Amino acid sequence: MRQMKKNDLNIGIIGLGYVGLPLASKMSELYNTIGFDINSKRVLQLKKGLDINFELRKENLIQRNLSFTDNISNLKKCNIYIIAVPTPILKSKLPNLKMLKHACKLVGSLLNINDIVIFESTVYPGTTEEICIPILEKVSKIDCKSDLITNKKSFGCGYSPERVNPGDTKREISDIVKITSGNDKKTSKIVDKLYKSIIKAGTFNVKSIKIAEAAKIIENTQRDINIALINEFAMILNKININTNDVLNAAKTKWNFLDFHPGLVGGHCIGVDPYYLAYKAKVLGVKPKLVLSGRTVNDEMSKYCALRFKDGLLQKSIKVKNARIIIFGFTFKENCKDIRNTGVLKLVSELKNLGIKPEVFDPIADLDNKKIYNNVTFIKKLNLNYYDGAILAVKHHYFLKNFKINKIKSYLKSKNFIFDLKNFFSSKIVDDQL
Amino acid sequence: MRQMKKNDLNIGIIGLGYVGLPLASKMSELYNTIGFDINSKRVLQLKKGLDINFELRKENLIQRNLSFTDNISNLKKCNIYIIAVPTPILKSKLPNLKMLKHACKLVGSLLNINDIVIFESTVYPGTTEEICIPILEKVSKIDCKSDLITNKKSFGCGYSPERVNPGDTKREISDIVKITSGNDKKTSKIVDKLYKSIIKAGTFNVKSIKIAEAAKIIENTQRDINIALINEFAMILNKININTNDVLNAAKTKWNFLDFHPGLVGGHCIGVDPYYLAYKAKVLGVKPKLVLSGRTVNDEMSKYCALRFKDGLLQKSIKVKNARIIIFGFTFKENCKDIRNTGVLKLVSELKNLGIKPEVFDPIADLDNKKIYNNVTFIKKLNLNYYDGAILAVKHHYFLKNFKINKIKSYLKSKNFIFDLKNFFSSKIVDDQL
Repeated sequence: MRQMKKNDLNIGIIGLGYVGLPLASKMSELYNTIGFDINSKRVLQLKKGLDINFELRKENLIQRNLSFTDNISNLKKCNIYIIAVPTPILKSKLPNLKMLKHACKLVGSLLNINDIVIFESTVYPGTTEEICIPILEKVSKIDCKSDLITNKKSFGCGYSPERVNPGDTKREISDIVKITSGNDKKTSKIVDKLYKSIIKAGTFNVKSIKIAEAAKIIENTQRDINIALINEFAMILNKININTNDVLNAAKTKWNFLDFHPGLVGGHCIGVDPYYLAYKAKVLGVKPKLVLSGRTVNDEMSKYCALRFKDGLLQKSIKVKNARIIIFGFTFKENCKDIRNTGVLKLVSELKNLGIKPEVFDPIADLDNKKIYNNVTFIKKLNLNYYDGAILAVKHHYFLKNFKINKIKSYLKSKNFIFDLKNFFSSKIVDDQL
Repeated sequence: MRQMKKNDLNIGIIGLGYVGLPLASKMSELYNTIGFDINSKRVLQLKKGLDINFELRKENLIQRNLSFTDNISNLKKCNIYIIAVPTPILKSKLPNLKMLKHACKLVGSLLNINDIVIFESTVYPGTTEEICIPILEKVSKIDCKSDLITNKKSFGCGYSPERVNPGDTKREISDIVKITSGNDKKTSKIVDKLYKSIIKAGTFNVKSIKIAEAAKIIENTQRDINIALINEFAMILNKININTNDVLNAAKTKWNFLDFHPGLVGGHCIGVDPYYLAYKAKVLGVKPKLVLSGRTVNDEMSKYCALRFKDGLLQKSIKVKNARIIIFGFTFKENCKDIRNTGVLKLVSELKNLGIKPEVFDPIADLDNKKIYNNVTFIKKLNLNYYDGAILAVKHHYFLKNFKINKIKSYLKSKNFIFDLKNFFSSKIVDDQL
């Protein structure tokens, strides 16, 4: 669709997770939209109006112009494809572009002249032009670049990074400015116009796809580094025997101090994206010192917390070996069901390495697919006077509302150690805080 | 003065630089104040109403309750001493506490029972209690800690970190919240009351001296790291052939992106303070990975800029050896006269290492004391059609107002290379931008 007429637009969205699903719902307010996901179970749930991420309600899913499918051939009629698949990392911390490449192959097989393919997945700068477009061209046998001399027909390609904030119910997709870009001016303009039509907060059109890719990856890297820095402060301040929060509260009284907090860093964005940037930097011969230092610090936090908890037990003369402890919270982020890439998983295994026996309590977490986490003992009901200690790991509103300190203490033996990673309580009523 | 009655207070301020002088002037609005500096020339100028840092005007200096001296015995009458001397680093990057220790000895020699000594100099947490107080106690033969049982008399000690922003004429000392602390509750209360009386923005009293020390050092470290991160981005983005500023402008459209810019980092605070924190961390057995990575990146920026400038010359087929170039700006910060610890000095020497012949133009800089910088050629008048290139290094308002791009180009040969480190101009009209 190199000219954009509203009724002619058929939008196909590839990937129906945190990014694709709200986008599909929003797009369908104005355009015919079909959402595709390879996960048939997810598609079935969505057809029934159920989003297990709780990002969208039934009325957002059951709409006249919106349909869902796990059959890619149902997207044949589409002329705008938006790819919003996950871009995780491999065990080696290198970019895992498998899903992105697969999505390109699927879309390439459907692509027609003048169609536009837009990418929303977070990638290192250059991915769209160096990896995605070549796959689309190869599979579709159509070029992306127009040739004005031969008047050879082409498809268009855009990049508009997702800025979804899982668990943030205040900022919906339409409230967040969207960066737009395209492989040529004409495509860029159409991509921009498309998003402008659905984003209340407006768009920010940039000169090239690479700029749009870079803007997204530096946003998340900046956040990762800033949390890592506070984590490093927390490690130093603990050795000085002062409470991190006391120091942060004082520093915050300066107008330009940045309000970050220590903690475990997990999830699909800030714990992952810096590795994409680092990968590209290394390929180009730039050593990403700071970017990787930040990752190292944050990756080591689970181990650090486990060791500090062990020290706490010892200080209170609680036997470490076989100590039974309860961890409050398992998801990668507060008020969010998602447990993928959670830092708590690593915390559990680090505690186990020390001979401690942790159990996890998280009524918010989506534990449906437990098998990946089969080394973790999840419990639904807490026993009284049972545990040697507690780690308060994820600050769900649910915990703050339902678990006051005395209730938490009721599950613990009289001699216990409480390590509060996320400032659930005042430092006076817990044994240690990060 | 462990009880604070306004007319009984005699305040002595040790060190009359960016921190001590505005503080002395402000204190003298309410209290008898005497400022001491070992630099007799500076004291003479101040007596005449001249602050060569241009932070204060004559009317702020010539005041009824304010006097200046280079003779420490003139402070004998004081009962509150505020120490605001520089805390730089040694060549080895370790803390240089020489001036701080010397100030402690001077004050110790004057100290009486019930006097209070307040430190404003930036230090690592623990410095005041582990180093300064012992010197004060030894020289004065008075203890700092009161003994309630023996009723032994003591002096008090406080710490209230300076938050002066050189060159910032909008935020005066009274506009910036001041953290206060003391070695015991009574002293802490008096220190807080004293600052509260002169700081319009208010104070923030913390539980211990160490918390106050830590709050200050993490503020500046956070700033250093954030600039370092943008510098690292700039290095990566340059290799991707995209303009850093284009990317930052796009990223900034996200509500929580932090608006920092690439550049040389110099001066007495953010280029220095992280080494204090790193020192203490190492002593305590914590490896300050991130803190030191940030320092490494920022310390290497001068060399990086020199090499990138060389590449620029080569790309335009301009001979590097003996290339004559002009650098706009020499001070450590824009709109500030101070050249101490400026990153431009290192840039000059890195350019020279490459065989380039840089000259420096900075009408704002305080070049009175040129001998330290005798390897740098400063010029006052620029020759037309003379230079092979220019580096725009420090973004003084003066330059923006008086040196449009065509004027700058008039000093350059027709084949030239302009490297704009600080976004003086749009990327279209210069050859390269950081």
